[in-house]
Amino acid sequence: MRNIALVVSYEGTRYFGFQMQPSGNTIQDHLENAIRKLTGEQTNLHASGRTDAGVHARGQVVNFHTEAKIPVERWALALNSWLPDDIVVLEAKEVDLQFHARKSAISKTYRYVIDCAKFPDVFQRRLRYHHPTPLNVEEMREALTYVVGEHDFTSFCSAKSRLLNKVRTIYRADLKIVRDPHRKDMANAIEIDITGNGFLHNMVRIIVGTLIEIGEGKKSAADMKHILQSQNRSLAGPTAEAHGLMLWKVDYESFA
Amino acid sequence: MRNIALVVSYEGTRYFGFQMQPSGNTIQDHLENAIRKLTGEQTNLHASGRTDAGVHARGQVVNFHTEAKIPVERWALALNSWLPDDIVVLEAKEVDLQFHARKSAISKTYRYVIDCAKFPDVFQRRLRYHHPTPLNVEEMREALTYVVGEHDFTSFCSAKSRLLNKVRTIYRADLKIVRDPHRKDMANAIEIDITGNGFLHNMVRIIVGTLIEIGEGKKSAADMKHILQSQNRSLAGPTAEAHGLMLWKVDYESFA
Repeated sequence: MRNIALVVSYEGTRYFGFQMQPSGNTIQDHLENAIRKLTGEQTNLHASGRTDAGVHARGQVVNFHTEAKIPVERWALALNSWLPDDIVVLEAKEVDLQFHARKSAISKTYRYVIDCAKFPDVFQRRLRYHHPTPLNVEEMREALTYVVGEHDFTSFCSAKSRLLNKVRTIYRADLKIVRDPHRKDMANAIEIDITGNGFLHNMVRIIVGTLIEIGEGKKSAADMKHILQSQNRSLAGPTAEAHGLMLWKVDYESFA
Repeated sequence: MRNIALVVSYEGTRYFGFQMQPSGNTIQDHLENAIRKLTGEQTNLHASGRTDAGVHARGQVVNFHTEAKIPVERWALALNSWLPDDIVVLEAKEVDLQFHARKSAISKTYRYVIDCAKFPDVFQRRLRYHHPTPLNVEEMREALTYVVGEHDFTSFCSAKSRLLNKVRTIYRADLKIVRDPHRKDMANAIEIDITGNGFLHNMVRIIVGTLIEIGEGKKSAADMKHILQSQNRSLAGPTAEAHGLMLWKVDYESFA
């Protein structure tokens, strides 16, 4: 028995999210199908976390057990030949049998990108949420500082979640302005990077939806603190659109 | 009568090129349709140049005559509301009646991007040609110097072209290596920028197809010079794939 870990990137646009569903067409379906084509085995993939429908991943990590003797350096190319062109395995590693893509993860980083140009960048339109009206970036940046640390994130969790423990630790939360020097219209994009030990359902998207309301002046930066303390989903902003979100990377102790 | 010029960006993936065709679904069809919806007028659009099926544009320039009294600052937003989301008008200007998007152009710049990573960047896959085996960049760079200047580009023109005068002037031809600091696999991309006073059918793609053969060692840098002198299409390399090519910008004397 071997334990194989994969680093996978995908554009989530046309998928119903990561996790297998009766309706099919999920990232997990396609990955397990490619593994079955290659090895003849039906595996049960573990991912570092599920991504919602329409959410992308630059460095999702998954693992699975196999009896296949294929050398580890051949897995990525072989699996890619069975995958659609919007799902790409970047790397395969043989890992300890104890390694579990979710349980072994130390932290995960998500990136949300807002395209602030007057008109959307056509080449980034599937990866950025377009918000052409002005945003107060300084207020948004201050608001972000309040989510850092260990908190009960009930206010920033989908009301549908049945999880009991909603305490998570955010290690970093940064907001960066990215300027495209080529565009005359002073096109800016805002990149929001959030690293934590775990994320609740829709957590990043609700934080970003709240940040956008703060940037628009509908809420103040200090409201972020009160919303967090209230443990009340209805006080936070809306869930930001899926397509601006990307699972950026997953960190492990022993998986470089 | 007014003369309106537009700067238009589009992802060419799902279109049959710029120029109107009986089969429809071209960039010109969609632009003329949007103008008709907005003004009620059937216009005859002039573009700086046609782009082939699958080729993209960051800054295509078109112009058309209209009797519509819509203020110039409203055109872009109004037209975008009638356009599909992979065609975006970035700017509209009222220009002299003499202005003609093709005839008034001083130069055009095309960019071709080669993704040299082992596995393709999934987020750039529609915009970059993936070439995972090694390329000798120094040979390619030397070869590019031979296309600069005034030459008869018969060797780098589609054999189907019925043009008689195949002399064009290339002002600049640069090759740049772009490194993605985020990718562990040392993913490089090669950007090739070519600026000239005009381009023959498939000219940039045949130059790039020849450059790739030079980078692969199938031809030498000096061969570029001989191929150019031979005025023989069959000596040049293949036509590089359309999706790596983008009409980057068009320059005019009086259109900033």
